Amino acid sequence: MLGEKGIEVNLKSELYWERREEFLRLNPAGDVPVLVEKESGAVMADATAIAEYLDESHPEPPLMGATLLEGAEIRRLVAWFDKKFEKEVTSLLTSEKVMKRFLKMGEPSSKNIRCALQNLKSHMAYISYLAERRNYLAGNRISLADLTAAAHISVVDYLGDINWEQWPEAKNWYVRVKSRPSFRPLLADRIGGLTPPLHYSKLDF
Amino acid sequence: MLGEKGIEVNLKSELYWERREEFLRLNPAGDVPVLVEKESGAVMADATAIAEYLDESHPEPPLMGATLLEGAEIRRLVAWFDKKFEKEVTSLLTSEKVMKRFLKMGEPSSKNIRCALQNLKSHMAYISYLAERRNYLAGNRISLADLTAAAHISVVDYLGDINWEQWPEAKNWYVRVKSRPSFRPLLADRIGGLTPPLHYSKLDF
Repeated sequence: MLGEKGIEVNLKSELYWERREEFLRLNPAGDVPVLVEKESGAVMADATAIAEYLDESHPEPPLMGATLLEGAEIRRLVAWFDKKFEKEVTSLLTSEKVMKRFLKMGEPSSKNIRCALQNLKSHMAYISYLAERRNYLAGNRISLADLTAAAHISVVDYLGDINWEQWPEAKNWYVRVKSRPSFRPLLADRIGGLTPPLHYSKLDF
Repeated sequence: MLGEKGIEVNLKSELYWERREEFLRLNPAGDVPVLVEKESGAVMADATAIAEYLDESHPEPPLMGATLLEGAEIRRLVAWFDKKFEKEVTSLLTSEKVMKRFLKMGEPSSKNIRCALQNLKSHMAYISYLAERRNYLAGNRISLADLTAAAHISVVDYLGDINWEQWPEAKNWYVRVKSRPSFRPLLADRIGGLTPPLHYSKLDF
């Protein structure tokens, strides 16, 4: 979102599970993201609160819709991915495939992984359904719904769990999001010790 | 929120877990709330999306703040209660004390309940901290943060799990929210077969 709006940002990583006192003073909820505005010194927390703030303080290009109803549709889809997709797919796959490995908690549960991959199918079908009918997921213009969906999709794709051949409409949409200058640096991020599939950061896959 | 803004509404209950086809057409996510606007026929889903829409379409009284920074603080606290409090307290207590009972899933887990009550203490301390420093949780005026917090608190209070003597500042804030004409009808709601403590719907407790 910062990239789309051309806002300069100095990214800092925070090992929030260490619960650093100085960080807890910025955000007592103890999670990320947190935004500190340079000029004003204002501190903001929570991804949704920050997104609403940025879209109002930097209205161009609008990422929350031009009309109230467009806004409602965009926010419905943001919630779809940040709540439903997160619970049914992303958090299951990352806890089984990433967290368990780094925390040395033993073998991933094949039952949980099967369950997440089954759920993923319905979600890929829904993305395809939307992509077939609209230019972008929530309408004719790119919006926060696309950025949120693509953030989740890229995590699952990093783990090699998307069979793109099966979902040409979704793939067509994702290629367009991937190609944006705002998205490409994100695809260069790597988790140490965990290599994504070859197609992961390719724009033409 | 509808009550505060004086918007007339025809409430309908939906047994969303039955996944009625007609309801799924309104909201493929299959959850509540869903808002159908009478004049326009517009359909909206997701509590946050609906709240943002209502505050823009019916700006008086503003419940999302008068300035951008007030808005960010309100949304931070809405997320605090709808995500953090929900995960750490409400969902644990309702699944152990309400869902298990109605679904005849056996005895509640005393470990989960102890854990939720321990978490509740930190949250009551945080509400007290805010209530001591501000008129309302997010600032000088009532906002969606108060309505969201009070919604969660009233669920926990219905189950008899808040020792109000311990939290005079939080109690003072909650009495003021309880007394609002918008909130009082909510306190008349009952779950069949589950009686709240005597003080639950009293304004002076």
